[in-house]
Amino acid sequence: MHPKESAGLTVKKNEDFSEWYTQAVLKAGLADYAPVKGFIVLPPYGYAIWESIREILDKRFKESGHQNGFLPVLIPESLLSKEEDHFAGFTPEVFWVTKAGDKDIGERLALRPTSETLAYSIFAKWITSYRDLPLKINFWNTALRAEIKATKPFIRTSEFLWQEGHTVHATEEEAEKEVMTILDIYKDLIENYLAVPVVTGFKSDSEKFVGAKYTTSLEGLMSDGRGLQMGTSHHLGQNFSKPFDIKYLGKDTKEHFAWQTSWGVSWRLIGALIMVHGDDKGLVLPPKVAPIQVVIVPIHKDKDAEGVKEKAREIESDLKKAGIRTHMDGRDEYTSGWKFNEWEMKGVPLRINIGLRDIEKGQVEFVRRDTKEKIPCDRPKLVEAASSLLATIQENLLTRAKLFLNENNFRPSTYSEFKSIVEERGGFVVAGWCEKVECEKKIKDETGADIRVLPFDQRGKPAKCIYCGEEAKKAAIFARAY
Amino acid sequence: MHPKESAGLTVKKNEDFSEWYTQAVLKAGLADYAPVKGFIVLPPYGYAIWESIREILDKRFKESGHQNGFLPVLIPESLLSKEEDHFAGFTPEVFWVTKAGDKDIGERLALRPTSETLAYSIFAKWITSYRDLPLKINFWNTALRAEIKATKPFIRTSEFLWQEGHTVHATEEEAEKEVMTILDIYKDLIENYLAVPVVTGFKSDSEKFVGAKYTTSLEGLMSDGRGLQMGTSHHLGQNFSKPFDIKYLGKDTKEHFAWQTSWGVSWRLIGALIMVHGDDKGLVLPPKVAPIQVVIVPIHKDKDAEGVKEKAREIESDLKKAGIRTHMDGRDEYTSGWKFNEWEMKGVPLRINIGLRDIEKGQVEFVRRDTKEKIPCDRPKLVEAASSLLATIQENLLTRAKLFLNENNFRPSTYSEFKSIVEERGGFVVAGWCEKVECEKKIKDETGADIRVLPFDQRGKPAKCIYCGEEAKKAAIFARAY
Repeated sequence: MHPKESAGLTVKKNEDFSEWYTQAVLKAGLADYAPVKGFIVLPPYGYAIWESIREILDKRFKESGHQNGFLPVLIPESLLSKEEDHFAGFTPEVFWVTKAGDKDIGERLALRPTSETLAYSIFAKWITSYRDLPLKINFWNTALRAEIKATKPFIRTSEFLWQEGHTVHATEEEAEKEVMTILDIYKDLIENYLAVPVVTGFKSDSEKFVGAKYTTSLEGLMSDGRGLQMGTSHHLGQNFSKPFDIKYLGKDTKEHFAWQTSWGVSWRLIGALIMVHGDDKGLVLPPKVAPIQVVIVPIHKDKDAEGVKEKAREIESDLKKAGIRTHMDGRDEYTSGWKFNEWEMKGVPLRINIGLRDIEKGQVEFVRRDTKEKIPCDRPKLVEAASSLLATIQENLLTRAKLFLNENNFRPSTYSEFKSIVEERGGFVVAGWCEKVECEKKIKDETGADIRVLPFDQRGKPAKCIYCGEEAKKAAIFARAY
Repeated sequence: MHPKESAGLTVKKNEDFSEWYTQAVLKAGLADYAPVKGFIVLPPYGYAIWESIREILDKRFKESGHQNGFLPVLIPESLLSKEEDHFAGFTPEVFWVTKAGDKDIGERLALRPTSETLAYSIFAKWITSYRDLPLKINFWNTALRAEIKATKPFIRTSEFLWQEGHTVHATEEEAEKEVMTILDIYKDLIENYLAVPVVTGFKSDSEKFVGAKYTTSLEGLMSDGRGLQMGTSHHLGQNFSKPFDIKYLGKDTKEHFAWQTSWGVSWRLIGALIMVHGDDKGLVLPPKVAPIQVVIVPIHKDKDAEGVKEKAREIESDLKKAGIRTHMDGRDEYTSGWKFNEWEMKGVPLRINIGLRDIEKGQVEFVRRDTKEKIPCDRPKLVEAASSLLATIQENLLTRAKLFLNENNFRPSTYSEFKSIVEERGGFVVAGWCEKVECEKKIKDETGADIRVLPFDQRGKPAKCIYCGEEAKKAAIFARAY
């Protein structure tokens, strides 16, 4: 893929974050706009990151006893409306199919905004006895929600790639455990592969999933100081099993309504890693999910081309054999300078420069994308050094992001201080909350910051509610968010 | 997954093929009906077969230089209608979105019946020069076509899982080569993994893909004598590059319209392997794509349960270590007879029975699903024997299916003989064809058989057209088909 815009980014990350983000995504060839507003297309370079995420999660899901299934994209309105809160939450953004060919269809059909209702109408048929439990199924598909707010590639689109997991359990405790198992899998993916640190905890009741008993979530902090919800894992209680009649015959020979969970992450994760790690040159991809981990650029005059390229191909082959995703850029029609810019824009974590002088010295030159540092390396140590540098880069990205998170974690003691942080700096603002909806709502109306997460770790909870001054029941993280 | 219907199949394959098929699919837990007519859901056991197919193809596609991408499911009507023949072909079965939330949307949006038009409107932006070619992208998604004919799980559904590949080339020859590369990959998958023999060749002009220059296809023969199109690979010529303005600047510094291909296979392949290999007991899955390759059933009285199960678990662990997909059925609430029936219905290729007497003799008993043959085996040779039996079963399924194809391959010398074969026996009927549309159409109207494929292998082409008696230009395979 060779996007027509091959020039570099024209804005700096800290000057116009929104425009920087759009350029970083489009110019790197991660996504492109589709003909319908709010929809995007993924060229291979962008889709490959999703494939990495999918592979990592799929393995973890299967290891923990989940299996994949398939559900159709169309849901009859009568099913979607069976759980009232759920329907009310989604209906403003549902796409409706009303015709097939020339004919009006009878009942209109929703394009899946999420599949709880469809899945559970089927699960009710599959489950009769305790022997059928637990049932733990995941679906890799897309969800469709007509977005009215400003759309942004990966972060807010009217169709998005995601996975949605749906489980059914005999007991409330087992469902609780499942919610946390999944949250742990997500946290591991996001921190240890995408190198984005997150805070985990509960959503407040106003922000929980429509129809859930409670929602747990992982909240990340973007470079512009806004929060981004990275994934959610919901305890549905019996809120769906009752309207959908998901019952099982227990060992006690009595019928019981089952307990359920649902959970998902989407390609929004790709948006997060762009926002967190990218710089003025473009993307900086974490090695573990980078489609190309090492790019080799041969540097030569015309007359030396074949010799240098041959050495470059040898290096490519050695690295590939070691399982490193490597690309040798042997194009003659571009200068090496042009290539450097392009691969930097695309965020390839490690570059190898090799020219005639390097070959004579039996060396190559590494260039780290994250620090721009140049590191000479003896040819025989190349594979080992590349592996070790990739691990170092992966680690450094997480360390940098953690540092940023810590530096942008504030504990105001007054509401006016709270407001000035939200308005002037952004970041995660930790404050006490009395658990009253009025305070939550007023803070949101007055500052634009809502409760992103009520951290599991409640150590250091402030004594008083930042808004009303009454006793704080919870420490809450407030932020403006995407 | 434990479907409520656990009793065996109630019809025989050769008595009521259609009902047999439906029962085989539903009772094995491969698919279930969705709430909207014509749509199905896949429980994990069915989806796992699609995952195998996907994995096999994905690897081959990537090895041959293809990459995956993502396209949205919604296509504006104006784009879909840009290539006239194509639009006319699909429009009767298109699902239309006309509303989002409460609002009418402007231009109505089609749910992807196939993505040529959407993909090519994007490719036109991505391609400027010969350096951007070839462009070879594959999409794993679903297509939606409102089916009016009788629907059948996997074979004809209003939404189906598939892959669609789309490539762009500088020359006609390169596109031709691509068409055949893909056809070879499909043939290898279908014959060597799904164990279904196919005949490859061209579609007649009346049967080719709407908008294609020509279509190549792979045709299989089902056990009831009907043909089934297993996959297609199309040469699109410049039929789309012209309306979609896909041009590239050549090395000659002139602009040229590009040459294109598209190709796909769907979950219909799962339907084919059920039809071809299944028997009166249910499915018979080819080992290479079976979600469970070996099932172990411990046979014991209550008092011996733990000892026997422990040995069964040892066997399970040994087989898994050898990379064999194995399941130990340790459920206490079912008899071993009940388990035998269930796993036979689910088509697991190889069963291991192990009881106290086997343990004392240091043996196990294998039971082949394809031949029902029982084979004793010394415990130390178990892993090796299981691998070798699985290979034998895989081979035997293909051999049997090839035999059936040969036995049901007819060469009538008169049209009345042709008709009686089509009407009384079914099968592939090889006949000469003058290449006139009238003859093709009359045969179809009078017998229900159409030209399934014009085989690449034209050896033994009959001299005369089976219908009009004029000189035959092609040997054609006729059949009634799904």
